Amino acid sequence: MSQSRRSFASDNVAPAAPEVMAALARVNQGSVHSYGDDPETRRLVELARRTFETELAVYPVATGTAANALALAVLAPPYGGIYCHDIAHVNTDECGAPEFYTGGAKLLPLATPDGKLRAGQLAVPIAHARAMGVHHVAPAALSISQATEWGTVYQLGELRELTATAHAHGLTVHMDGARFANAVAHLGCSPAEASWKCGIDVLSFGATKNGALAAEAVIFFKPEMARDFELRRKRAGQLWSKLRYLSAQLAALLEGDLWLRHGRHANALAARLAQGLRQRGVELVQPVEANEIFAVLPSQRIAALRAQGFEFYEWPAARPDRQPVVRLVTAYDMAEGDVDALLAALGA
Amino acid sequence: MSQSRRSFASDNVAPAAPEVMAALARVNQGSVHSYGDDPETRRLVELARRTFETELAVYPVATGTAANALALAVLAPPYGGIYCHDIAHVNTDECGAPEFYTGGAKLLPLATPDGKLRAGQLAVPIAHARAMGVHHVAPAALSISQATEWGTVYQLGELRELTATAHAHGLTVHMDGARFANAVAHLGCSPAEASWKCGIDVLSFGATKNGALAAEAVIFFKPEMARDFELRRKRAGQLWSKLRYLSAQLAALLEGDLWLRHGRHANALAARLAQGLRQRGVELVQPVEANEIFAVLPSQRIAALRAQGFEFYEWPAARPDRQPVVRLVTAYDMAEGDVDALLAALGA
Amino acid sequence: MSQSRRSFASDNVAPAAPEVMAALARVNQGSVHSYGDDPETRRLVELARRTFETELAVYPVATGTAANALALAVLAPPYGGIYCHDIAHVNTDECGAPEFYTGGAKLLPLATPDGKLRAGQLAVPIAHARAMGVHHVAPAALSISQATEWGTVYQLGELRELTATAHAHGLTVHMDGARFANAVAHLGCSPAEASWKCGIDVLSFGATKNGALAAEAVIFFKPEMARDFELRRKRAGQLWSKLRYLSAQLAALLEGDLWLRHGRHANALAARLAQGLRQRGVELVQPVEANEIFAVLPSQRIAALRAQGFEFYEWPAARPDRQPVVRLVTAYDMAEGDVDALLAALGA
Amino acid sequence: MSQSRRSFASDNVAPAAPEVMAALARVNQGSVHSYGDDPETRRLVELARRTFETELAVYPVATGTAANALALAVLAPPYGGIYCHDIAHVNTDECGAPEFYTGGAKLLPLATPDGKLRAGQLAVPIAHARAMGVHHVAPAALSISQATEWGTVYQLGELRELTATAHAHGLTVHMDGARFANAVAHLGCSPAEASWKCGIDVLSFGATKNGALAAEAVIFFKPEMARDFELRRKRAGQLWSKLRYLSAQLAALLEGDLWLRHGRHANALAARLAQGLRQRGVELVQPVEANEIFAVLPSQRIAALRAQGFEFYEWPAARPDRQPVVRLVTAYDMAEGDVDALLAALGA
Repeated sequence: MSQSRRSFASDNVAPAAPEVMAALARVNQGSVHSYGDDPETRRLVELARRTFETELAVYPVATGTAANALALAVLAPPYGGIYCHDIAHVNTDECGAPEFYTGGAKLLPLATPDGKLRAGQLAVPIAHARAMGVHHVAPAALSISQATEWGTVYQLGELRELTATAHAHGLTVHMDGARFANAVAHLGCSPAEASWKCGIDVLSFGATKNGALAAEAVIFFKPEMARDFELRRKRAGQLWSKLRYLSAQLAALLEGDLWLRHGRHANALAARLAQGLRQRGVELVQPVEANEIFAVLPSQRIAALRAQGFEFYEWPAARPDRQPVVRLVTAYDMAEGDVDALLAALGA
Repeated sequence: MSQSRRSFASDNVAPAAPEVMAALARVNQGSVHSYGDDPETRRLVELARRTFETELAVYPVATGTAANALALAVLAPPYGGIYCHDIAHVNTDECGAPEFYTGGAKLLPLATPDGKLRAGQLAVPIAHARAMGVHHVAPAALSISQATEWGTVYQLGELRELTATAHAHGLTVHMDGARFANAVAHLGCSPAEASWKCGIDVLSFGATKNGALAAEAVIFFKPEMARDFELRRKRAGQLWSKLRYLSAQLAALLEGDLWLRHGRHANALAARLAQGLRQRGVELVQPVEANEIFAVLPSQRIAALRAQGFEFYEWPAARPDRQPVVRLVTAYDMAEGDVDALLAALGA
Repeated sequence: MSQSRRSFASDNVAPAAPEVMAALARVNQGSVHSYGDDPETRRLVELARRTFETELAVYPVATGTAANALALAVLAPPYGGIYCHDIAHVNTDECGAPEFYTGGAKLLPLATPDGKLRAGQLAVPIAHARAMGVHHVAPAALSISQATEWGTVYQLGELRELTATAHAHGLTVHMDGARFANAVAHLGCSPAEASWKCGIDVLSFGATKNGALAAEAVIFFKPEMARDFELRRKRAGQLWSKLRYLSAQLAALLEGDLWLRHGRHANALAARLAQGLRQRGVELVQPVEANEIFAVLPSQRIAALRAQGFEFYEWPAARPDRQPVVRLVTAYDMAEGDVDALLAALGA
Repeated sequence: MSQSRRSFASDNVAPAAPEVMAALARVNQGSVHSYGDDPETRRLVELARRTFETELAVYPVATGTAANALALAVLAPPYGGIYCHDIAHVNTDECGAPEFYTGGAKLLPLATPDGKLRAGQLAVPIAHARAMGVHHVAPAALSISQATEWGTVYQLGELRELTATAHAHGLTVHMDGARFANAVAHLGCSPAEASWKCGIDVLSFGATKNGALAAEAVIFFKPEMARDFELRRKRAGQLWSKLRYLSAQLAALLEGDLWLRHGRHANALAARLAQGLRQRGVELVQPVEANEIFAVLPSQRIAALRAQGFEFYEWPAARPDRQPVVRLVTAYDMAEGDVDALLAALGA
């Protein structure tokens, strides 16, 4: 664990968890069949099925961008459209990876103030697309982020309504779960309830931000949808020959629900930080439901914090008062002391 | 190290080297800037420059397929042609990754019996392509494997002639160095002599088969050619947020030339195995110059070896006598005893 | 000419002009070299240079979608971003053709109420993109429609400011001129003033809506930018073997500025129609500057017109009063009587 | 008709047939619904069904490259493999269009001396591909040319055996029928017998080389396979707004089997030319079964013919005696006198 962790820039600055490192050491023995024909990958499949209480197909890859883009390539043809939030990571932060992997499918962004899409937003654009026939890309999929890029979390009822609407229109549903652990921790439900029981077809299950070196899992809850995934993964250069080293990271996090404990820990720190900020009169621009806080800070305070070694990003946010908004992210490896140090540095 | 290693299937069944594991543990401390803005990645750049004795741009990725496909995407436009051997890994084993990454460029395969292309093979097809104008893909690059897929190694003079011819025709040159260590070990020259001094523009420097968990480096010897590599890497989902874990693997292998010692060790075992096979009257279908042996074995002997737990692949080879050919691969983690055990199992 | 033309649905329902048909008949003699090595294609090049008063590279293709997508594929790499209006034809009506042809580049839509982009809209998103580095697609091009999809026309000063801003940020500029004739007719300037003298790098010069059977020209005002266009056109299946039949259509329209007279005629009819509508108290939602009119019509009046055989589209427009908006398009082949018939059918 | 036609370079140097020009003039009346919702396109569908005696889906496009590439994009996924002859037009003459349209699928060339594939050539490479699993592109389709690029014609029995083998291995079958008319004329069978009754799933029905300005038809004999064709056609910029002008060309050729009479005429001229060449002692390197002749001509005779204004291509052919091979192509618009003039020019 880091001492005096002063970076709130992202949960991806954290190191790997000791359990993950131990798992790598454990599987680093002898010669093992390559490309996933190994005991650790089989163990991962078992753990994933137990965690999600269902049959599924699970594929480890090294990055969240790869997980999302591969999942979307299965769900949307090159002439397809993918509805998503306009601030969705797939739309704004992946340098066009979904367009690359799908062969040119189009992301069709929808806006809301809190990062969560509403079921009612789908009908009009889909009807318009259908009316336009071949001139419009064919509505194919819906991609949602849970937790969202604004640190908010869809309630189960919201998810159910959204996926039911999508399915009714013939769309499949992908969930970008880079921070799925934080969302499940917030909801207090089971992983199954937060995913397939809510109508999610494919989940990008994030681990890199939650204790892995580099590991994400693409999980298909309808395994027959994964038919061509393995070919797509290989041709994308995303199939490791020594796959056990990816599987081991994920298995270590699933074992004993370490991933969920990590998520709860990060959320608790975010709540503590949010409370401290509010007590100091800092305005938060979104409800704090996961491990991200978006706070309004005057430029002098930002500069003061940075001078003391704290790290974080300013966030694009169109505020009427033009005050800067900063993003503060907690992570599984942080301690209460790290949060308190930031609050202390802020002063009154 | 494995005891009683009986798999000669591939060098990718080996575990990671202890030095690599130690490096992972070493960099697993505290919070670190993501996406390559970290000390370990800077250290890798330094080590690579020292190893190759030149300015260069080096980018770590997790798989050889990604390294090759990203490199080729930089060298060839979507309407371009890439000359390669017809048994080149990029042409036969990557499920179309080069086509995917380049946006549809065409591999133009050329044949030889030993896996090595000859400089004289280029002029006619290039002249034909140029004469055909827009109807033919535009000759753009040459990709060669060193060591080759037949376990042979280009001599420096052969390389120089080949790259000079390619450059004279306006092509850039990529080297698939999945087994670059074995080639350099065989040649007894410096890495610089085996690469840019021989006219190689971009090298896929292999490490996964040579002691890493999952790491390869794409090395541009003309850094200005790498201008768009970073964007391509990101949109391919090949940029790790915690890049230090890739950089550390590569740095550990470059440090003190561990990679080269690994290559020499595997080559020595292959030579020992080849000698033992020849002494037992086994025909080898290619010169043994790296760590791969292609041997003619009757089906009963294949079955007998497998019954004793030995693993290896039969190889597609059009022999007039229709006898099977097997591939035997040695690796950095094997011991003389492993080789001798196979020879003993073969009997007289 | 059609008698009693009752379709105001689009200018693409019109037949080809007699001059165009005559040109086809004229070039339909004897055997002629294929793929553009023919006198008619050379004549087109000459006519284009004379029309635009400059050196240029001109390439005929059969559809506007092909013209736009090919042009954008030259301007933007697969990892690039193309700024455009959110209602731009390239963004809404081409089924993802730009994404297909560019290999996955991303259209980055900007909004305005009148279909015209403002120079001031570019700085913030480009700065944001640059700050995000490899996570954001690389800003590469600006695509504008002239006349716009709302039937409005950029003034020359507006164009100059827009292209200067784009160029200052390193973008190239594409103009979708499906209705370039109508725009030039409105502006009363020369084609040169309306294009390269205003900073346009590449123009999709529309002819299909303006008297051709199926013909558009992609015009590069910096011919060196067209270096790879011919290869892209061929691999897109857009190079006709009997290219003279495309070239002849375009040449017939350029000859004696027939294209411009067509544009003036359609504009004049639109102005007459607009005046008649206003006199009848019909609200128009955009200034009528080219050959498209967007009018607010109650559903009963729409039904009544349709019952009398008039054809037109309802247009998506978010009006507070939820009244339908219809689009009425005039064309080169219509007569004043056609317009008057519609007005008469509308009644008081 | 041309007088003194001296170009034997290609059938694509011919003008359009008078019937085709008349059809264009006929449909050039009044305003007509765009994008295929027009009487002429419906008429084409009827004529195609009558010609092929079956239900089918038929889509007109302007070029053969577009027809082939669109058809293959429907048959093969981006990670798929398409078996074809190594001299197939799709493999050698389309600048990578199949790779572009499929999103990177791989053409897997097979060789024979006469341009015709043999059923027995498929089993081994397909078994190899399947054994390699995700490392090899997935065998998806077979594409054959009829008539072939060597001017030979598959017999019906050969076709049946080939398509049965392909189907048995799970492949679909595409026929590049750029010279389908010449093949059917040679076989003396019905179009149905030469296509779907022989197991062809999708046919590129050529017309440009056979009397059209620019028109080909993609014909799906299992219409359900065409589900996504229309979206692919649009995003490829291959959907004409004024589709009637494409449909009219094809309909004019289907009407009264004009296409077939054209094919018979060109074949008869080729036979006459072949006979004359043989009588003059000229060696032909392939049987003359369609409208292409490949003849061995010494360089002086080539020069002499060219000096008299005759045009034709030298053809790449690896002859042991290194003598040049020329291709002579007859076409629907030529007359016996044109052939006789060439023979006369050759002399004894």
